[in-house]
Amino acid sequence: MSAVNVAVVGATGAVGQELLRILAERQFPIKSLKLLASPRSAGKKIVFNNQEYTVEAVAASQFEDVDLAFIAAGGEASKQWVPVAVAAGCTVIDNSSAYRMDPKVPLIVPEVNMDAARNHQGIIANPNCSTIILCVALKPIYDYAGIQRVVVSTYQAVSGAGYAAMDELQAQTEAYARGREVEAQVLPVKGLPKHYPVLFNVIPQIDIPGEQGYTKEEWKMIWETQKIFADPSMRITATTVRVPTMRSHCESINVETKTKLTVQECRNLISKAPGLKLVDDLEAQRYPMPLDTSGQDLVWVGRIREDTSLEYGLNLWVVGDQIRKGAALNAVQIGENLIADMR
Amino acid sequence: MSAVNVAVVGATGAVGQELLRILAERQFPIKSLKLLASPRSAGKKIVFNNQEYTVEAVAASQFEDVDLAFIAAGGEASKQWVPVAVAAGCTVIDNSSAYRMDPKVPLIVPEVNMDAARNHQGIIANPNCSTIILCVALKPIYDYAGIQRVVVSTYQAVSGAGYAAMDELQAQTEAYARGREVEAQVLPVKGLPKHYPVLFNVIPQIDIPGEQGYTKEEWKMIWETQKIFADPSMRITATTVRVPTMRSHCESINVETKTKLTVQECRNLISKAPGLKLVDDLEAQRYPMPLDTSGQDLVWVGRIREDTSLEYGLNLWVVGDQIRKGAALNAVQIGENLIADMR
Repeated sequence: MSAVNVAVVGATGAVGQELLRILAERQFPIKSLKLLASPRSAGKKIVFNNQEYTVEAVAASQFEDVDLAFIAAGGEASKQWVPVAVAAGCTVIDNSSAYRMDPKVPLIVPEVNMDAARNHQGIIANPNCSTIILCVALKPIYDYAGIQRVVVSTYQAVSGAGYAAMDELQAQTEAYARGREVEAQVLPVKGLPKHYPVLFNVIPQIDIPGEQGYTKEEWKMIWETQKIFADPSMRITATTVRVPTMRSHCESINVETKTKLTVQECRNLISKAPGLKLVDDLEAQRYPMPLDTSGQDLVWVGRIREDTSLEYGLNLWVVGDQIRKGAALNAVQIGENLIADMR
Repeated sequence: MSAVNVAVVGATGAVGQELLRILAERQFPIKSLKLLASPRSAGKKIVFNNQEYTVEAVAASQFEDVDLAFIAAGGEASKQWVPVAVAAGCTVIDNSSAYRMDPKVPLIVPEVNMDAARNHQGIIANPNCSTIILCVALKPIYDYAGIQRVVVSTYQAVSGAGYAAMDELQAQTEAYARGREVEAQVLPVKGLPKHYPVLFNVIPQIDIPGEQGYTKEEWKMIWETQKIFADPSMRITATTVRVPTMRSHCESINVETKTKLTVQECRNLISKAPGLKLVDDLEAQRYPMPLDTSGQDLVWVGRIREDTSLEYGLNLWVVGDQIRKGAALNAVQIGENLIADMR
């Protein structure tokens, strides 16, 4: 692959840091690297591939000689900087939700729909973390048996809300162990009036309220999945929930297929599909759990059972590191595919 | 109500202790009270209604003058002592799973099917904790619109596995905060070979493996719910999961009804139904959470949404204290109803 000039916007955040780790690990062909962030973070030092970089404040002029920009600094930053970067000639892989549902913007999970990125117009959107994990797991089932309907309930880690939420769970744990008051200022949603402890709690709200009583996170899982599979007829409903884990989202997925798919066939499909790892042996107490999947690139699938309440149905338990495959790794994989096409 | 002679078997356990608290709170009409447990716990002192009782070892002779026995000492103890107590003339309310699916034994949630207890033959079974919470929430929906199919995923507290599991989560929390190794010896299932930390983890196994890749806990939710509603045609599938909370089980419930039930109608039904509390205002960030429901008698219901993937469907988020309504309170309510009938 020919090396390219890369910028990472949001380099000091949880996803930005993971992006840098993955770019280094996978020896992404970088000619030059710019680490950009808000003026607040400018001047910070970050070591990448044994070389020290100084974080610079993001500005229009920064994009002039950049080929590929990873933007992971939240929706507002993306709305501001994505058009600027594209105007400067960059190809942008945007981690925010700002452009995902724009019909002109491809929304890509490489294992599912890399082809849809071919005719991009400068912006490629990286899907929501829970959506990516869901789509990677559904893909082999969709191709083999078709999907009629999906009911998904999530068990999402606090890191989905960034470093502040991880720090909050850490602080709550220490406060509890020392007999001090457990305080909450971040979760469920920074900026909303009410905050609840997540330690020893379960919070059925991720992101702000959307239409019809669903949260935005729930709509993201529904609409983004239909867009990624290019199949608006796929029926999906979602309930998204925060649990006190640091990293890795879990999903309890009920799938109604269009034709029969046995448990054994499903296991075979999962064990061969890209991006997935089959971990499924209840008798031996082997199933995916967040403590095991954190830091892993693959999405783990287990507890595969025939849904006895349907003619064609299965239950799956799916766990993936939502900062890696759910965000940073997926973005880097998109970048790798784009560069391979550029050759 | 005429007062009765009561025995509590398993008086030192998590459910037994809660039973005693609830019997006292609700001024259960007790003529005499015997606290029984394994020989290991015999001799322990327990204060009930400002009076000190000594725990005695359970034995056949202990049941001779008892009218009503609450047995909450696990399945093996129930298999041993329920027949003995019944032979001695006791009416037994059994908390274990040993007799629940016996066609001769009524399985009772008072809000749903108290009538089914009328012709009992000495044993009345108290359902599984997750089942009770599910059934109380489904009852008004079932009566109004009929239920075609239920998909439920649970978020269960460690106290469902007794004091040992609560102590384990407490110890793991303290160890983590002090930088010591987090050890696991109890969860997911005491006696099975493998144990996993529950702190910062999610474990998709509750109880031992059963048929077709489901755990016993999952089958309990399916089969017991069909028995309680006396409706084997009700289609149910379940995924049961342990999360790091101390008390109160959460359930993400997807219901397909037989006729249309709007969100507003469902809210009205829930707000009027016995045993339930409507806590449903996402805009105001009001929804049920374990930290709020612990110690509460009512099962809280919120996040009620139309399932846009179905013609007639709803999503609900339901949380209840599984030691109270999920076990001890339900047993005491059965006892109250039985005594009222005896008059």
